[in-house]
Amino acid sequence: MVGGGEGAFIGAVHRSAAALDGDYTLVCGAFASDAIRSRQAGIALDLEPERSYSSYEAMFAAEAAMPAEERMEVVAIVTPNHLHSPVARAALQHGFHVLSDKPATLSLAECLTLRDVVAASGRLYGLTHPYSAYPLVVEAAERVRAGELGTIRKVIVEYTQGWLAEPIERSGQKQAAWRSDPKKAGASGCMGDIGVHAFQLAELVSGLTTTQLCADLNRVVPGRALDDDGTVLLRFANGATGTLIASQICTGDENDFRLRVYGDSASLEWNQQAPNTLLLKPAHSPMQQLRTGGPALSAPAQAHTRLPSGHPEGYLEAFANLYRTFAAQVRAHSEGATAAHTVPGIDAALRGMAFIETVVAAGKSEQKWHPFPEVGT
Amino acid sequence: MVGGGEGAFIGAVHRSAAALDGDYTLVCGAFASDAIRSRQAGIALDLEPERSYSSYEAMFAAEAAMPAEERMEVVAIVTPNHLHSPVARAALQHGFHVLSDKPATLSLAECLTLRDVVAASGRLYGLTHPYSAYPLVVEAAERVRAGELGTIRKVIVEYTQGWLAEPIERSGQKQAAWRSDPKKAGASGCMGDIGVHAFQLAELVSGLTTTQLCADLNRVVPGRALDDDGTVLLRFANGATGTLIASQICTGDENDFRLRVYGDSASLEWNQQAPNTLLLKPAHSPMQQLRTGGPALSAPAQAHTRLPSGHPEGYLEAFANLYRTFAAQVRAHSEGATAAHTVPGIDAALRGMAFIETVVAAGKSEQKWHPFPEVGT
Amino acid sequence: MVGGGEGAFIGAVHRSAAALDGDYTLVCGAFASDAIRSRQAGIALDLEPERSYSSYEAMFAAEAAMPAEERMEVVAIVTPNHLHSPVARAALQHGFHVLSDKPATLSLAECLTLRDVVAASGRLYGLTHPYSAYPLVVEAAERVRAGELGTIRKVIVEYTQGWLAEPIERSGQKQAAWRSDPKKAGASGCMGDIGVHAFQLAELVSGLTTTQLCADLNRVVPGRALDDDGTVLLRFANGATGTLIASQICTGDENDFRLRVYGDSASLEWNQQAPNTLLLKPAHSPMQQLRTGGPALSAPAQAHTRLPSGHPEGYLEAFANLYRTFAAQVRAHSEGATAAHTVPGIDAALRGMAFIETVVAAGKSEQKWHPFPEVGT
Amino acid sequence: MVGGGEGAFIGAVHRSAAALDGDYTLVCGAFASDAIRSRQAGIALDLEPERSYSSYEAMFAAEAAMPAEERMEVVAIVTPNHLHSPVARAALQHGFHVLSDKPATLSLAECLTLRDVVAASGRLYGLTHPYSAYPLVVEAAERVRAGELGTIRKVIVEYTQGWLAEPIERSGQKQAAWRSDPKKAGASGCMGDIGVHAFQLAELVSGLTTTQLCADLNRVVPGRALDDDGTVLLRFANGATGTLIASQICTGDENDFRLRVYGDSASLEWNQQAPNTLLLKPAHSPMQQLRTGGPALSAPAQAHTRLPSGHPEGYLEAFANLYRTFAAQVRAHSEGATAAHTVPGIDAALRGMAFIETVVAAGKSEQKWHPFPEVGT
Repeated sequence: MVGGGEGAFIGAVHRSAAALDGDYTLVCGAFASDAIRSRQAGIALDLEPERSYSSYEAMFAAEAAMPAEERMEVVAIVTPNHLHSPVARAALQHGFHVLSDKPATLSLAECLTLRDVVAASGRLYGLTHPYSAYPLVVEAAERVRAGELGTIRKVIVEYTQGWLAEPIERSGQKQAAWRSDPKKAGASGCMGDIGVHAFQLAELVSGLTTTQLCADLNRVVPGRALDDDGTVLLRFANGATGTLIASQICTGDENDFRLRVYGDSASLEWNQQAPNTLLLKPAHSPMQQLRTGGPALSAPAQAHTRLPSGHPEGYLEAFANLYRTFAAQVRAHSEGATAAHTVPGIDAALRGMAFIETVVAAGKSEQKWHPFPEVGT
Repeated sequence: MVGGGEGAFIGAVHRSAAALDGDYTLVCGAFASDAIRSRQAGIALDLEPERSYSSYEAMFAAEAAMPAEERMEVVAIVTPNHLHSPVARAALQHGFHVLSDKPATLSLAECLTLRDVVAASGRLYGLTHPYSAYPLVVEAAERVRAGELGTIRKVIVEYTQGWLAEPIERSGQKQAAWRSDPKKAGASGCMGDIGVHAFQLAELVSGLTTTQLCADLNRVVPGRALDDDGTVLLRFANGATGTLIASQICTGDENDFRLRVYGDSASLEWNQQAPNTLLLKPAHSPMQQLRTGGPALSAPAQAHTRLPSGHPEGYLEAFANLYRTFAAQVRAHSEGATAAHTVPGIDAALRGMAFIETVVAAGKSEQKWHPFPEVGT
Repeated sequence: MVGGGEGAFIGAVHRSAAALDGDYTLVCGAFASDAIRSRQAGIALDLEPERSYSSYEAMFAAEAAMPAEERMEVVAIVTPNHLHSPVARAALQHGFHVLSDKPATLSLAECLTLRDVVAASGRLYGLTHPYSAYPLVVEAAERVRAGELGTIRKVIVEYTQGWLAEPIERSGQKQAAWRSDPKKAGASGCMGDIGVHAFQLAELVSGLTTTQLCADLNRVVPGRALDDDGTVLLRFANGATGTLIASQICTGDENDFRLRVYGDSASLEWNQQAPNTLLLKPAHSPMQQLRTGGPALSAPAQAHTRLPSGHPEGYLEAFANLYRTFAAQVRAHSEGATAAHTVPGIDAALRGMAFIETVVAAGKSEQKWHPFPEVGT
Repeated sequence: MVGGGEGAFIGAVHRSAAALDGDYTLVCGAFASDAIRSRQAGIALDLEPERSYSSYEAMFAAEAAMPAEERMEVVAIVTPNHLHSPVARAALQHGFHVLSDKPATLSLAECLTLRDVVAASGRLYGLTHPYSAYPLVVEAAERVRAGELGTIRKVIVEYTQGWLAEPIERSGQKQAAWRSDPKKAGASGCMGDIGVHAFQLAELVSGLTTTQLCADLNRVVPGRALDDDGTVLLRFANGATGTLIASQICTGDENDFRLRVYGDSASLEWNQQAPNTLLLKPAHSPMQQLRTGGPALSAPAQAHTRLPSGHPEGYLEAFANLYRTFAAQVRAHSEGATAAHTVPGIDAALRGMAFIETVVAAGKSEQKWHPFPEVGT
């Protein structure tokens, strides 16, 4: 693991998620740029002291030099955004599989480079979009794929949070600080942080490809260098349209991440705040409540479910699904095979970076519609 | 009453709403353009046969000639859109107060003319935006007005329906037929029909004034002449932004009319499908569920409530609130006074027409932002 | 109308409900036992002064003496409980149809007498159990009747309120005062006031007949003479069991009236706080949300619906359904016919009184199970 | 771990829960009574082959003989019910701490014996009532303890499931088979399986002690030897009353476990199907939605929360809270200290067994009220 020292929320999430199914053992880490703090983090995690490194470069070099059966196999990257890409490149080049937090890179150009590194390395690359691994998101995508919704006509996706409604980045909140710093977060704040999750989910579930967009990005809290709010109009290749709302200044909202996909035969609605229910709205018969672990679910959704119905599953379980799926990919890869189900990979990374760059450019423009780069499809 | 013969949904709604509080008695009507059908409708409603007229012109002439204590006092206009304006003008000019379905007219120019007729007539003019008369919408507006939300930063308003997801206007559904006919509906389908309700509610509750907008209007069902779907980005005078989604092709949705208003101190959320709950989300304390008839409501909200808490109120009660409020206006007017609370009037009509025209123009344009006319504020 | 003067909540509900469909015109009333207050109430309701009476006896005598086409046809009884029965008897004996608030009488014996008066009079008798007239309660009963649930095994019905959690009857709240006075309310407080609604709904929807019960009744607020809380265990003729919870001391609850009926093929759940949704839970397929005005509803449910789906209907509309149905009964009766659908009548009254008496006796007994009288089935 | 071989749902839950926080490492197990199957389970879990035992007796003997720093420290018991007690006794007598699935024993007498074994062993004993470890259940108990509800007057607790609505125990469903076999499940089916969870939660959160009960237990599915449904009336020491509904034949229900606690100042409502919301209903101000990770929560609730608000937590996280808390207890114990917060222990076990025995006896009796044994308080 790279990153994830004390005080880092997402590092602990990765470790719990990886632990859930017994597919991973944490063997080493570069948890902090400070050697002592990295060592302390490693001790707290029961690592052998010499395998807590003070830099990712040192870790990759040392681990790569170890015998195959002892050395680390997969690197989890949980640093602030600006390090995702250099760490991933180095890891791949040293022969490690990579599971990286999003965004993959700080720019689309950098992501195209990363794609080449992935291809050259022969290693696996995965991107942690956890929302796509909820059982009922998997089900939603399956239903669309199976044609149950007919032709998709409209997508509405919203991700509203309130935790940045005040300038907490100025009073020492670490999570807020790097997210609002262009050097660490990249070209976008809110869109890069959560808009890209919404975008990924919208394309994943609808099966549609964005071709054009119009964007309104705002810096609501005075003094911010990056957007903390925005709305994006989407046009898809099949003629359908979409609306994407992402905001971090929605006072009182938690993680109100909601997706609606409208087809001409039926529609679907899913809400991350109540992730164990998926609403299916057929054109001419009553709405159905599909439930995690409940009847009538597809095999892939069942494979993403750990408990019988009525035992609520949450964010950690979704995150753990990514780790479990990636473990299956690594096992398949080591046997020269290909896994049937995969986590979002370098193509998702490319589309994410294309989204961020296009949205930022469109947000500054008086022109209404902007073409969306043809990458990652 | 003008319009509202057999098969007309909204005419019956008006009559029930007017009956609810005992403030009105239906005395005459021009229910249909066909004399026999108008007469039959009148008989079914227990009217004296000679007071069912075959045209609104005939009705206004005959009623105006009657003694003051016998003649009609208020005209309710429930015709298809294209007749709203000529009927209203004639009624006002004959000295009757008018309560009209929206839109007030088919164009902004026509609405400016209507404004002058209202002013010249000395009569009252009301527009039936029923959603604005739900008790908790009144409460929401009061809370904003009282400063409880702080500065408003963002508004999201959605009104999604599924009933036009198929071209039912081609198989004889009357409601759908006139709504999709530019001659009867005006320049816009979906935006003129329901988008304008969303717009009115957004401005009413937030207290903000729209200054610019960007629009994406779509004709999703092939063969339609008017928009049946769209998204509008709004900019308000205070720098806040808004997103307005209106669609009639959202398969399986009923009247999913939801409003969220985000301030820097607190936020509000209301959903017409569960109209007796208003969610108040303060920045630093738990969400509150305000309930129709429940504790902590303002006097205006209480005045819009008929039943103790726990007895659900619905659309008819909201509609009846408009009628009751307009009756109070008429009573005050007859005494030379002014009512404290009023239904949406000619100014709301002007802003509605400005919304429709601007949205239609912006929807066709490659330019992103379009100024919003300064009318009705 | 008898009762329903100033300050009486339920009288206004009856008048609004009766007005909703245009089937009734209020022509006379004995609104209060004080002649002047009754007259004032009548004036406020636009009645002719001489038709506001100071007693129901005077009203029945005077109206019965009027020509048939002028006199009152139906009496609505909205007095405190102790007057329901004498007023109803007198009205029936004078030849008027009766629509009475529940409970029909203060005792089962008195109700058996009333049954005989109804039979002898040849007039119609209706009891206002409004919850049974919600569209989706009608639907629920239809689904059970059609066998969709299979054999009914279990019923859970709850009606919890919080408005009597404090002794407000001692500080002049009129509604609370008569309800907690044994002379005016009868043998039971909470069970007679709301438990009997729960009982009626449970039997109506499940189609089952109670044969035995076990009861725990409590007087929670110190100083009360009548129960304000209780739980009843039910045994039905087919071997199914039930649990009925009724309480008026549930701090913070409004009218949380919820019914669940469990069959071996499917189950149903309905909640008065969200009355436009009915949950259907089949044994082996996803839950369905049936919606007022939505697809797949039976003809009787549609007949109890006024608006298209998505326009919420509430308590007043349910109440108005009783009035509309009773009007249809009266019309059928005057033509010598029988209405297909009827409001709860004298049989429902008998079962209600049997419930109250048995529950009160069982609540005081150390014996577990008590037989339920075979009346009204 | 004892039990939890292939096909055992709860064993996997225990392992995932234990893994979540990194406080436990699985070092040995007696997963099945068949030596080969136990060994295979151990291999799948990456255990050293010689530490997969064919019986718990063999495991305890072998592990107790190992050096302190290598041997097992805590035993998790996840067998069918009839083995819980003998395994626990043996483990304690060999010096191991025990975390056992409920019920602790098959009878109250056996549980009193177990209490003595616990006391004599000086080891810790914990019982896995996972629902009591949801963050908002902890919060609910804290709010009651702090007096925010005032005097508790009424408790309603329901746990309804539908998975045993059909006799699936006869078609080889293992989970159903042992639960409906009196030899393996004990004196009660439904009450012993889920009723006891409801009872534990009701006493835990309300802080009340049951003194009397009246029970109606049913065997709804023909052919069952044990109850699969029931309702229990409770009387508490402070004069409050309660209703407990537990059923496994509620077609279409999942794990509808809902608790309502009514005080004279405020009330609380929690539902396991949406475990991240707790409804607080004050007597005279609007309802509040308390949220996992949200504002205004107590320190103990925060300590039971892993993620920021808006990241839904579920059943596994609650279960993991038990493991984490028990790990803290073990650490404190090894240092001669006492943990501030503990999992349910032998006292909860005693009350659980007292509940089951009393309920079964009361269910068979024609006497209404039955005294509740004074144990475990």
